Formats: sequence, structure tokens, C-alpha cells
Amino acid sequence: MSTTDLVVDAQDIEFCLFEWLQIDQLQQFQKYEAFDAETLGLLVTEGVKFSEEVIAPTNREADRAGCSVVDGHAKVPECLHSPYEQAYQLGWAAITASQEFGGQGAPEAIGLALSEGILGGNLALGMYFGLTQGAMELIESFGDDELQQTYCARMTSGEFTGTMCLSEPQAGSDVGAARTSAEHVEGMKYKIKGSKCWISSGDNDLGSNVIHTVLARVEGDPVGTKGLSLFVVPKIKVNEDGSLGEPNDVNLVSIEDKMGIKASATAVLSFGDNDNCYGHMLGQRGDGMRMMFQMMNTERIMVAGMGLGIASAAYQNALAYARERIQGNHIDSHGQDDAPSVAIIEHPDVRYSLTSMKARVEAIRALLYGACFIEDKMHVTEDAEERQELDDLFQILTPMCKGWACETGLDIARAGMQILGGVGFTKDYPMEQYYRDLRISAIYEGTTGIQALDLVGRKMTTANGRLFMTILGKFGQLYEANKGHPRLGPLFARWKEAYDKMTECGMTFTEMIKERGLSGAVLYATPFMFLFSTVTAAYFFLKQGLIADQGLEQLKADNSVSEQGLAKFIEENGKARFYDTKLKTLDFFINITLTRYQAYAVPILDRNYTALDIAL
Amino acid sequence: MSTTDLVVDAQDIEFCLFEWLQIDQLQQFQKYEAFDAETLGLLVTEGVKFSEEVIAPTNREADRAGCSVVDGHAKVPECLHSPYEQAYQLGWAAITASQEFGGQGAPEAIGLALSEGILGGNLALGMYFGLTQGAMELIESFGDDELQQTYCARMTSGEFTGTMCLSEPQAGSDVGAARTSAEHVEGMKYKIKGSKCWISSGDNDLGSNVIHTVLARVEGDPVGTKGLSLFVVPKIKVNEDGSLGEPNDVNLVSIEDKMGIKASATAVLSFGDNDNCYGHMLGQRGDGMRMMFQMMNTERIMVAGMGLGIASAAYQNALAYARERIQGNHIDSHGQDDAPSVAIIEHPDVRYSLTSMKARVEAIRALLYGACFIEDKMHVTEDAEERQELDDLFQILTPMCKGWACETGLDIARAGMQILGGVGFTKDYPMEQYYRDLRISAIYEGTTGIQALDLVGRKMTTANGRLFMTILGKFGQLYEANKGHPRLGPLFARWKEAYDKMTECGMTFTEMIKERGLSGAVLYATPFMFLFSTVTAAYFFLKQGLIADQGLEQLKADNSVSEQGLAKFIEENGKARFYDTKLKTLDFFINITLTRYQAYAVPILDRNYTALDIAL
Repeated sequence: MSTTDLVVDAQDIEFCLFEWLQIDQLQQFQKYEAFDAETLGLLVTEGVKFSEEVIAPTNREADRAGCSVVDGHAKVPECLHSPYEQAYQLGWAAITASQEFGGQGAPEAIGLALSEGILGGNLALGMYFGLTQGAMELIESFGDDELQQTYCARMTSGEFTGTMCLSEPQAGSDVGAARTSAEHVEGMKYKIKGSKCWISSGDNDLGSNVIHTVLARVEGDPVGTKGLSLFVVPKIKVNEDGSLGEPNDVNLVSIEDKMGIKASATAVLSFGDNDNCYGHMLGQRGDGMRMMFQMMNTERIMVAGMGLGIASAAYQNALAYARERIQGNHIDSHGQDDAPSVAIIEHPDVRYSLTSMKARVEAIRALLYGACFIEDKMHVTEDAEERQELDDLFQILTPMCKGWACETGLDIARAGMQILGGVGFTKDYPMEQYYRDLRISAIYEGTTGIQALDLVGRKMTTANGRLFMTILGKFGQLYEANKGHPRLGPLFARWKEAYDKMTECGMTFTEMIKERGLSGAVLYATPFMFLFSTVTAAYFFLKQGLIADQGLEQLKADNSVSEQGLAKFIEENGKARFYDTKLKTLDFFINITLTRYQAYAVPILDRNYTALDIAL
Repeated sequence: MSTTDLVVDAQDIEFCLFEWLQIDQLQQFQKYEAFDAETLGLLVTEGVKFSEEVIAPTNREADRAGCSVVDGHAKVPECLHSPYEQAYQLGWAAITASQEFGGQGAPEAIGLALSEGILGGNLALGMYFGLTQGAMELIESFGDDELQQTYCARMTSGEFTGTMCLSEPQAGSDVGAARTSAEHVEGMKYKIKGSKCWISSGDNDLGSNVIHTVLARVEGDPVGTKGLSLFVVPKIKVNEDGSLGEPNDVNLVSIEDKMGIKASATAVLSFGDNDNCYGHMLGQRGDGMRMMFQMMNTERIMVAGMGLGIASAAYQNALAYARERIQGNHIDSHGQDDAPSVAIIEHPDVRYSLTSMKARVEAIRALLYGACFIEDKMHVTEDAEERQELDDLFQILTPMCKGWACETGLDIARAGMQILGGVGFTKDYPMEQYYRDLRISAIYEGTTGIQALDLVGRKMTTANGRLFMTILGKFGQLYEANKGHPRLGPLFARWKEAYDKMTECGMTFTEMIKERGLSGAVLYATPFMFLFSTVTAAYFFLKQGLIADQGLEQLKADNSVSEQGLAKFIEENGKARFYDTKLKTLDFFINITLTRYQAYAVPILDRNYTALDIAL
């Protein structure tokens, strides 16, 4: 491989899907009956190949070209058109979309596996796919027949693209402050008027139409989020026969000049400048925010996938560079004038940094695949109680996935550039683009702070803390079952220490509310989320460790490997080597990474209110 | 102020210089006799103004324009020429340069105060000043009369710029692998041949000539660093009468296309393509690396100043934005429909993040000003023993300043962008440029990993650990004198806990060498450096705390403030408010920031070798 190409970690992805999650078990349910192990395996193999060979090679050129506005319409870089079309023709862009409208209907965990490569390969391009699917799913879930027939299939095929229009200049994180208005015309038809900003894919020439889903307030409805309704507003009206009609008075005001994701058109849009913009209400009046939230969980997992995709690409890139780049002697030959120069991967501090990156990439992967598989099981189970439990878990996992994966991904991209040194800072390698592009992931779809508030203020308090208790119950079960594990016991013990601290923090918030009101409880929302997320990622990672340990033991038994012969066996047997490396990576994550996050508990348990009391 | 302007924190800088360090005490020494308190105060005030009004306004334009190559020569953005000239005319660019050659001869701590503003205002421009002064100081310190007379004054006036040429394609962090050769001609004159890369300010049109200081190997000299000599190689030969003569066969091959510091020309240079490049040896043959190292300490403190300057600018920018940006209701009014929207600085998680940024900015400032003042005292003391102690401290502080300030500065720039949200990711605000520009600081002048190796492998082992013992002795003295302090006692106790852990890690390295050779000792060099640096920054910050506490107590006594009236007094009295905020900022740094770094000790004390043993 070259140090400038995308490499997707297919081996770890396949381990997650097939050995750990055993995703082919979903085949027993009608919804996924077409997805046997062979089909799923082929999807992953071919999808990875597509990302590496078709998507990723456009990344640099798309960044340099950026988006432009010509005659009032946004143009994306020319080089994106062909991979866009191929992605829809081959089914990759709509892999999880429902089969009813032409999608592949694959499980979410498979969708995530493909997203890893697509988003790691070209984040900006991947966003067009994701936003379109998000908007299409809103219409599929809440639209009436007319809306579904008009839009769903054409959005699944990529003929139309889609957006989600929430933000306005005075209403970013505070969506409820939106002023865009909707005036009733007849039936579900409304006149839309207002301005929206930060609209990703807000205008583009990839499809022939842009279908906006727009939060607006019907005149007279209450202030705040509870007065918001949701509307489908096409850029170009669609005639009854399906042909495109007149423009719908949706005007592109400008596109943002950004540090990264330059090939993604981030638009300011104006609806109804000429009082001629019509929208079709989606779902119930006043129910807009609830519908958006339902979709937002999916979108947030997609953004978390950006953290994973870029982090993994950055790690693989740094790893390849560290193997190729020869510089300096090995420290153990210190003082020997004739010592040979070695690849920098031989230097202990480089090994430390690479292992640290690898541990976090695999922990993010464990957390996200774990969450997606829970979502998949939730979609198929017929047991209401189980469905509730799975839903509880998915709800509480979502802000952790988005908040922690994106921030940790940024840490990893930064560490990756450090491995490359000066060349990593130049435009000759993809690392600097990873560093720029991924930065937005911690901001959009709810900033990291918003995720933390969602976790602490909403998910942990829902139903008297039932979600929190559910996940703690899962932790407890895993610990009790494995605390005496011959190899992993000490890691379980250390993990228990960290999750006890986390739990103690959760309890302390109650005290803090007594002392300082809600301010006291949300002051540490973000560091608490980091601690909780790391503990949760460790939960999934430890489960992988159990599989890897079993796998290694089985290989040893099958090959009659003695303890003395083990090192040699591991070196020579690829599968054994993978398991052994997985176990060491887990060791690093628990003993080093998790240990650091555990320290985030200290000021919470101290109930330190300095940041509230200081005069800034 | 506007959220797009540079704001330098003059109040904290003045507190550091005049209240904490009492820098005017240097006036008692002949070297600094011209620098009374009033003069120093004026320098700071006017220097800050110059940075804010002349330097900073060019930052964005210079970034957008970037450097170009015209007819084989580098051109810097046009907008840099006027501030460049003004900075030399007014003396700011050579504030610490020796008076003998036309500099201001001010103390290093004052130079740092000015650097904060210049580097925070336009990092790329500040680099031209810094590199020229570095090269000039090499000539001043080691050059013969001819070299000094030819170059020093013209480099101090900005007529000539300067560079330091170390790296070659195969010799980055491993400088000793350099292949550039020097062939003796006569006297100190040598023919230079070879290629150098990553040469900051390597070519430019700001001055009329570029004076390179070049590491090269005289033919027949040993391999490795010990065979390297240092040469002064002008781009254009200087005639005996001082006029510019023929070009010196130094050719610009290319300039790098970089993610940031786009207005700084990073050059690949070729010396002697036509066998017509002449250099003048500086100092002794084979002594090149030692001389470069001496200078490198100064350069590394300058790069640390980039971390400080950008971090402070990012914090001030985020603070201004958080005060202006209205969004969302206060969480304590949760559930009240008519609650007013507030500035985001009222949101607890925003306050947490801002306080965390402020604590780290002020800790970096404490560390760097502390180190520079030690350097200043070292330059004037006539007591040999004291000089040795000060030199020991400065030597061990240097890698901490460079390594920790730059990495922590990156953390702060990232946090700053997060406060701004989406707009911080656009080109409309300076934050995205801070984030891009500062990234290089952790790479050049020795990567963070190289700083850590310098600390652990060189500085801590020098003279049987004397430097390490010296700084530990300082810590112990401060702790013993203040452990019972009525207000700060608990902070001293917590600090002691952290530095005991750090010391224990230092001792553990000896065990690790026994177990795993030098690899074992350097495996954790970087996290150890972070822990050590935070402990050391806390040492200086605690000293500031003592001053702030005294100041506040004095104000209370002078104004007969009762305990009941204290809050109101602090609110109304600017100075009291500053002291109170300083004490709270210190509290945050010790109880939250330092606590986190303390966790870095865990895997060291565990002697965890996973990263050495894993098959990557």
C-alpha cells in the first residue's frame, strides 16, 4: 500500500460483524432473510473495495476544487459526479434503505461497515448520501402516501437529494427559537417563509432536485420547540405525472467558506422570498421536533461513523508511514556508531502513539457496532419487553457514540499527523485533510456539549433513570460472569473500578442539584460523558476480548501448541496473531486509556463549582 | 472589541512581569540598567498595541494570499511588508537583540511578552523575526569579527533575514544523518554542496538577502552529529564594502504547500548546484551541533511562545464570542416558557470550557515567563553557583515549555472553535486559522516526542540527575514553606500528591531500564513529560497564587472590607476581582487539569509494556 491511499481495516470489521456480533443470526428474521453469512461477507468485501478504489481517490481533488455557486445554484466538484452515480447504481449509497423503495434493506451494522470506508474515503461525498437517506426516512416514516410515492424511490436512487433544515441564524443549538413560518393553504399544503442556515447538501447538482425537510411554525402555534411542525419542501415542484415543474421559490443565498468538508455545500437558504414557496406537512402539526429527533438518532450515529471512518483512515495511514519511513537508530543500539537506521515504527514512543491510536479506533468501532447491532435487534424482535430494553440501550448509547467518537476521532487524526511529522502538515499527504474535515463532526448534528446534555439531562433522567439502570445492569452482568476469567480477570477488575466511579458521579449529580440547582448537574456533563462513553466502549471491547481469548485458546488446542511454542505460533499464524493483538490492544485501552478518563471523576466527586463561581 | 480582532491579555502579562516576577529588579544589573519599571511598562503597553493594531490585521489576508515563487525566488504576501518594516523600525522585532548591533537589549521575559502578541497576531510573520534573530545570535555568539561585522547589524535591522538549515530529506529528527558537505577552500572559507528542506523563511523578499546557517560535514569528518560543522551561507555574496555582490549558488527548489502558516515560506534549498556556493565556518570544526543546540533552546522557547500566543488569542476570542452570542435560556430557568435568551457564557458547560481554557493559558504563561525570567537572571548573576543552578533549571524547563505549551495550545485552539460552533469552522472568524497554523508548532524545532526524549533521555540524566534534583528541590522548598497556607494549603497538598507521583515515575524508569533496556525508559517519555510539565506549570502558578492572595488580603485590609462585604467589594474593585479570579483559575488548574495529568502516572507505575510487545 501507499501512504497516500485509504486502507479500510476489513479484518477488524469482519471480526466485529461475524465473530463478535454474529450478525448472520439476523437472517432468522423475515426482514433480513436475504442476508445470509455469505451475502453479508460479500457486501463487506465489495463495499470496502468500492470505498478504497472509487470513493477515496476523489478526496483530495474534491477538497481542492470545493463548491461554487453558478447562476444561483451550487455546483459540487466535478470529480464527485461519477462516484456518486456509481454508489447509487451499485446500491452502496442506500444499503440500509428499505427495499420497498429500492434500497438494499441491509442491517444498520452492515451500513456502518460500509460507512466507515465511504466516510473515511471522502467525508464530504458521504454526507450527501447520509442526508438524503435521513430526509427520505423522515418521509417514509411520517409522510402520507402522496409524499412517499413522490419522493421515496427517487431519493433512494439518488435522483433527488435531501436535506434537514433546522438551524436559523438565531437558532442553532437552540432549535426552538426558529422563526420560519408556515401559513395554511389547503389540506396538507402550506406556504413557507423564512431563512435557514448550516444546511448541509443544501443545494447541489448531484441530483435533479433537492428535497428539503423544514422545521417551521404554523402561525399561531406556541413558541419553543413544541410549536414546530415539519414540512417537505422541494427545490423544484414535482408535477403529478412525476415530471419536474416550476421552481418552488427556494433560493440559495450563499454557501459557507469552510476550513474543511469543502466539497460539501453548506448553504444558507431563503424560503418564500416571492411568497411562492409551498411545503407539504409531514406527520402531525406541532410534532416536528419529535420526528426530527427520531431521525436525529440515526443521523448522529452516521456522524459518529465519520469519527470512526476518519480515525481508522488516519491510523492506517500513520501505520503505513511508520513502517516505510526509515530514520534514526533503535534506542537499544544507543551509542553504537554503526547501528543501522530503522523504520520509525521501531521507536518506542512511536509504538506507544500507534498503539494508543489503534486502541481508541477499535474501541470506537466496538461502541458503534455494538450500538448499531442493538438497533438492528430492536427492529426485529417480537418481544415487547426486549424491544423496550434494546430501545433504552440505543437511546442512551446515541449521545455517547456521537460525542465520544467524534472527539476521540479528532484526537486520533491529530496523533496521526504527529507520526508523519512535517510531511503530515503538507498537502502531499491526506492527513491534513482528515484533520480539517473531521473537525466539523464535533459541531454539527448537535455539538459535543449538546450530546452531553442529552445524555445527562434527558437520557439519564428518562423514566426515573430506567435507561441508566438498564445499561448498568448490563455492565454488572458482564462483570459478574467474567470477574474470575483466567486471562481477562484483571482487566474486568480495572473496568469495574472505572464504572463504579462513573456510577458514583451519576449519583453525585443528585447532590449537586440540591446544592446548585440544574447548573450544578450539567456543569460536568461533557467530562462525565467522556468517562461514561469510555466505560461503555470498554464494555463492548471486553466482550470482543472474550471472543478473541476463546479464539486463541481454540487455535492453540486445534494445533496442539505448547506454552513454549506459543510465541512462534502467534508470529506465524495470521489468525492467532490477530487475536493476540486484539487482546493486547484491549489491555492498552483498559489500563491506559480508560485509566485516564477515570480521572475525570475527581472534580465531580469533589463537587468543585469553581467554573460556576469564577468571574470570566 | 469584536470577536474577529486579536486581544492580548495585557492585565495578566503585567501581573506576571511586575507583580509576580518583579522584573524591574533586573535594573540593578548593568546589562539591564536602562530598563526601569516605567520603561518596561511602556514597552509592554506599546508592544501590545502594535500587535493588536499593526500585526494582527494582516493575519487573514496573509493566509489567503500565501507565498509564491516568482523567477526562482519566494515572495511573501504583499500585506506583510509594511508591518515587517514597522516592526524593525520601531524595534519590536529585535527587542531582545543585543544593543551592540542595534537591538533593544531587553530581558527575555519582556521579549516573550511581546512575542505573545506578535505570534498570536500573525504566527507566520513572527517566524521571520524569530528565525532571523536566531541565526543572528549564532553569528554573534560564535562568529569571528568578519562575520559579525558583515551580518549582525543588518540582521538586527531586518535588512537581511536569517535561517537555520538542519533537515535533509533523510535527516529530520535524526539530524546526524545529514549529507550536505563542505570542502575546504582557504581559511574559514568552504565550498558547500547539498540539499536542505523544511527551511522556514528559507527564501523571501522581506529583506534584501537571506543569511543561512547551515549544518554540513567537512569531508572526512565522522558520521553522526559529531562530524557536523556550522557555516554561514548568504543567498547573495556580500562584498567587502558591504554592497551585495553575485548570487551564491543557493537555489530555491520549491516551497511547501501547507495546511497552515501559509505566509511563511518553507523552502527546499539546494546549495552548490553549480559548484559555486561558498560558506564561512562558524565556531570550531565539528562543533556545529553543540552550537545549534545552544541556539535551539532559545528557538524552542520561541516556538513555545506560539503555543501561548495562539492559545491566549483563541481563549480571548472565544470569551468575546461567548459574551456576545445570545442563544438558549439559562438552565436554572428550565421549564419557564417566557425565560429570556441569554449569552452563551451563562451556560454551565460553556463556562466549564472557558475556565478550562483560561486555566491552561495562564498555566502556560506561568511556565514560560518563569523559564524566561530564570534565563534572564542566569545572564546577569555573578555568582557561579547560582548561575549553574539557573542554567540547570533552564535546561530542564526548555523541553517542557516547547512540548507542553504547543500541545496544550492545540487543545485550547480546538476548545475555542467548539465555543464558536459552526461559525468557528468558517473562514469568517480567525479561529480556524489558529487551529491550522498552530498545528505545526508541535512538529518543528523538535517534535513533541523529541522534546520528551530530550527531557527523559538527556536533561534528566545529565550529571547523574543533578538537573532533576535541582527542580525537585525547588518544588520541595515551595511546598514546605506553604503547606500550611490558610487559603492555598489544600492546593499545595494536591500539587504535592501529583509531584510525588511524577517523582515516583522518574524512579520507576530505572526499574524499567533493568527490565527492558532503554526502550522501557523512553516508552512513556511523552506522557511523562506532560505530567512533569503540568506539575512544573503548577509550581509557577502556585507562586502567582501566593502573590494574588497577598494582594487580595492587602486590598481587604486597606479598604477595611468585612467578610460579608467581600463579594460586593470583589465585584466592584477591578484589582480585587483580578486577584480573586486568578485564585479561582488556579483552583481549577490544580483540582481539575492537574488531576487529569496525574492519571498519566498509572501505566508507568504499573510498568505496562504492551506497546512494546504488540504486533502492530
